[in-house]
Amino acid sequence: MDETMTEAAKGLPAELLRLRASINNIDAAVIYMLSERFKITKEVGRLKAAHALPPADLEREKEQIARLRRLAAEAELDPDFAEKFLAFVIKEVIHHHINAASTTR
Amino acid sequence: MDETMTEAAKGLPAELLRLRASINNIDAAVIYMLSERFKITKEVGRLKAAHALPPADLEREKEQIARLRRLAAEAELDPDFAEKFLAFVIKEVIHHHINAASTTR
Repeated sequence: MDETMTEAAKGLPAELLRLRASINNIDAAVIYMLSERFKITKEVGRLKAAHALPPADLEREKEQIARLRRLAAEAELDPDFAEKFLAFVIKEVIHHHINAASTTR
Repeated sequence: MDETMTEAAKGLPAELLRLRASINNIDAAVIYMLSERFKITKEVGRLKAAHALPPADLEREKEQIARLRRLAAEAELDPDFAEKFLAFVIKEVIHHHINAASTTR
């Protein structure tokens, strides 16, 4: 990759370049998975609009938060970060749902 | 899962429960990947502190943003969301790096 050559030219430690390559791979995987997640939540949005269900479901969110905090602890990830991450994603989802509802109704 | 039974009891469409189960799987995968990502960035933080490199690297971030926007477009994900996602994760990473630097020096 030309990015790596640019960085190597800056004289960064080789170990840092290796770690950054792994970060790049993980980021690509996460981006592709989030894309699938939004495809599914768009489908959820259509379904909710069709059944006149509200975009947000606080009980479902509470279950998701508890589950992700538990998974985060198992994965040695800060549960607070996992909760913030879910809030970040749900914020975007609610935004999609509101748009879907307004175009469906 | 008892969560699913609770939701089924609420009379939600079966299709919604199936979609939510897929969202749960994707979220678990992303949480586990983000945990690995933070393990790597903590290693990056230690390396940067050892080499007296600054926690933030704006040129690297610019490259990451451009790359993730391109990957997002390929994955049919909103590139703006991908950029916001990276900013969200990097904010947490910088926080870790600053902590690492203060405990190393």
